[in-house]
Amino acid sequence: MRLLTRPMRIHLAQKLLAEALGSALLLAIVIGSGIMAERLSNGNLAIALLANALATVGGLYVLIELFGPVSGAHFNPAVSLVMALRGGMPRAWLVPYVFAQMTGAVLGACLAHAMFDLSIFQLSVKVRSGSGQWIAEAVATACLILIVLRAPAARVAPMVAAFIGAAYWFTASTSFANPAAVLGRMFSNSFAGIAPVSVPAFMAAELAGAGIALVIHKALSGSTVAPESSSDAALSHDTLPRHA
Amino acid sequence: MRLLTRPMRIHLAQKLLAEALGSALLLAIVIGSGIMAERLSNGNLAIALLANALATVGGLYVLIELFGPVSGAHFNPAVSLVMALRGGMPRAWLVPYVFAQMTGAVLGACLAHAMFDLSIFQLSVKVRSGSGQWIAEAVATACLILIVLRAPAARVAPMVAAFIGAAYWFTASTSFANPAAVLGRMFSNSFAGIAPVSVPAFMAAELAGAGIALVIHKALSGSTVAPESSSDAALSHDTLPRHA
Amino acid sequence: MRLLTRPMRIHLAQKLLAEALGSALLLAIVIGSGIMAERLSNGNLAIALLANALATVGGLYVLIELFGPVSGAHFNPAVSLVMALRGGMPRAWLVPYVFAQMTGAVLGACLAHAMFDLSIFQLSVKVRSGSGQWIAEAVATACLILIVLRAPAARVAPMVAAFIGAAYWFTASTSFANPAAVLGRMFSNSFAGIAPVSVPAFMAAELAGAGIALVIHKALSGSTVAPESSSDAALSHDTLPRHA
Amino acid sequence: MRLLTRPMRIHLAQKLLAEALGSALLLAIVIGSGIMAERLSNGNLAIALLANALATVGGLYVLIELFGPVSGAHFNPAVSLVMALRGGMPRAWLVPYVFAQMTGAVLGACLAHAMFDLSIFQLSVKVRSGSGQWIAEAVATACLILIVLRAPAARVAPMVAAFIGAAYWFTASTSFANPAAVLGRMFSNSFAGIAPVSVPAFMAAELAGAGIALVIHKALSGSTVAPESSSDAALSHDTLPRHA
Repeated sequence: MRLLTRPMRIHLAQKLLAEALGSALLLAIVIGSGIMAERLSNGNLAIALLANALATVGGLYVLIELFGPVSGAHFNPAVSLVMALRGGMPRAWLVPYVFAQMTGAVLGACLAHAMFDLSIFQLSVKVRSGSGQWIAEAVATACLILIVLRAPAARVAPMVAAFIGAAYWFTASTSFANPAAVLGRMFSNSFAGIAPVSVPAFMAAELAGAGIALVIHKALSGSTVAPESSSDAALSHDTLPRHA
Repeated sequence: MRLLTRPMRIHLAQKLLAEALGSALLLAIVIGSGIMAERLSNGNLAIALLANALATVGGLYVLIELFGPVSGAHFNPAVSLVMALRGGMPRAWLVPYVFAQMTGAVLGACLAHAMFDLSIFQLSVKVRSGSGQWIAEAVATACLILIVLRAPAARVAPMVAAFIGAAYWFTASTSFANPAAVLGRMFSNSFAGIAPVSVPAFMAAELAGAGIALVIHKALSGSTVAPESSSDAALSHDTLPRHA
Repeated sequence: MRLLTRPMRIHLAQKLLAEALGSALLLAIVIGSGIMAERLSNGNLAIALLANALATVGGLYVLIELFGPVSGAHFNPAVSLVMALRGGMPRAWLVPYVFAQMTGAVLGACLAHAMFDLSIFQLSVKVRSGSGQWIAEAVATACLILIVLRAPAARVAPMVAAFIGAAYWFTASTSFANPAAVLGRMFSNSFAGIAPVSVPAFMAAELAGAGIALVIHKALSGSTVAPESSSDAALSHDTLPRHA
Repeated sequence: MRLLTRPMRIHLAQKLLAEALGSALLLAIVIGSGIMAERLSNGNLAIALLANALATVGGLYVLIELFGPVSGAHFNPAVSLVMALRGGMPRAWLVPYVFAQMTGAVLGACLAHAMFDLSIFQLSVKVRSGSGQWIAEAVATACLILIVLRAPAARVAPMVAAFIGAAYWFTASTSFANPAAVLGRMFSNSFAGIAPVSVPAFMAAELAGAGIALVIHKALSGSTVAPESSSDAALSHDTLPRHA
């Protein structure tokens, strides 16, 4: 950071503001819609999760579109880590990015509680544990990172949002897939919460998933030999031209 | 208005017609789907709000796309105020715009009642009050105005619609976020209604939210120093090129 | 028709096949998803209508995109009538188009029954009547025709689909908005059905709605005076440049 | 395969990895969300199918966008067969494609079970049989193949996803429409499962549907006579210029 001139620092400050705001709103959406859903659903958890998932899909799509042009709209330390590792952003920005995301996530939990007239500071008692949950977090995060790495820029927002909506249902953990979201949810004793004791394993599983994504991304992209010679071109016509 | 020549007045009249029609249909959608949802959901409020939210998302998306090219598709005095303040439309148009929106909103409530064979004129008795509700309205309106100010033109409609759908769930007030909608809903003693006594604080919270949006928008956009010199350019590569 | 040469007749035959297929699939979707929803929802009509609406939104979007390039994807005599009146298609095609739509719609009802192991031919006994229902059909059809007349080509499919999804909820009639759909639904004694006695008023209300749409479309588009002189241009800047 | 040079084999290997991964994730989504939905929905099957359908729509959209550029994102032997027949990919690739899809689908079922702490290997006992179910599978697959053959490349993903979401509801079989999905679901004794005894007829109905799609596609595209002469052009203006 020392090397950055003043204009750059201001530039970075705007990015950090966007990451903090976006992470706060994301957690307010996830936790707030969970509270509302649990209150209204008369104990039918499927309806509650449906509402929670749809609110998250809509909100996540908007937040990525809104803050993407400012900061890249990571809102997720696993995404920032992968970006820093692959040269998508200066490595010096990783720590401030993660700090902004973590701070924003906790403040977002507080905001949700303020809106619903609950104690601002809470700790979840909902234990989420077991190999099924951890596999789920790894799978969810691997898919999320693959999308971030491979999606065309114009479709990242709908793809990330749609995937998380699906993952609320198909992963046993309801797909946190984001260490900052784990931290924020730890501070909410509500539908979306997670007990502190379950936090480290969730975060570890998410980072493992990010690693898996990097391996798959390389396998799908890399080529250990020279590009196809033109004599191969005739055989190499695209598999599904209308489809890809 | 006196200064406008006849062609201009006709031009403005078309815009006002679009604002009135759009606001009327928006309220008919919000209130009508609330009535239908409450009738069919056997007292499960989560299902009712889910239907209400999805109908609003679909309807709002269509109305913004449909009337946007004519009037900008504000349907919302808070949006028109911000546009007038920032030079997005002539300030002289603010009062007629707001009048068209307010009139349309009330007529839309009447239309919903006519369709569902209810008394055309009603007043809600549903009190919506308390600091949680007011924070919620400020947050919802701030996000809405940020979207209007920052979204690329082609994505305003899906972004506004998706956000409002999420905000029905994550804000404790179910996100009115629109003084004209508050007025229209006041005239409906149904699922979506709001008692007259609760109206002023909702409107005030929404205007406060609009103000917050202007501050955040400036913080994310403005620069107090000269643009980055070219010697900084090497450090300034985009944070997430595929993502933004 | 007599004037058409052979290639033209083949061309028209393809369009009619597309209209018949699209109308059949549309009715199979509307009626079939209604049957499935009613079977599974344990008497909670809100959940049944939610499923019915979402299936219709998805199916309608796909059918318009799929058959639009062939026939325009009307699937609706009210749409074809408006197109013929406004020069969007040769008037001689109106009768065959409507015939294809009506035939397709009835076959679609039969297909839904075949899939769900029900009697292929049925008549609904569900009376849908009253001024509220008729106002609802006029409003729904007016909005639908406005979308067809004013939407940019690339957004007709999502806009029509999203609107119909909203209208399932906000109009008291659940928005048939299509005389061919009314006919097809008449032949299904299921969730989506309509008794023959209720059919004529529904169709009349829909045609009235189409007429209202033409009036509104003209009011929003037409200008009774010369275009704005350049001296007005300074005042005429766009109301919401980012928004429209 | 013997004729392929080494770079080509690597190229094909990446495609097969994409097909296997995509098929595995597709089945994990379909089966996993079914398990979650059944667990949470208190026996209301409509809510369970709603969640199952929405998760599938979101997941399918993402998987097609994600793996489309690598392999065409078939994930479906019926799609690959049609592509090979029509020259969309080399016929020599058909068998490895189908093998990758089948293997992936079975592994995806196992992954879903691992995430939900169930026995990894299961066989469904849910019999799905009868002419209604088979007609449904043929209709669903015919529509799916028509979309793949006729949709513009940029809209294949949302169209396929939206169609499958609708077809979960309007077809009596809940629309498997994919022999690999049938195989994978056979290995899951859960909400989305199918008993082995029901598998052959489902697969046969799906292939019949694919054949129907080819016939319809030809009827809508082909012309048995010369293209319209220019003297016909005046009559041949587009049916719905704003619509198509």
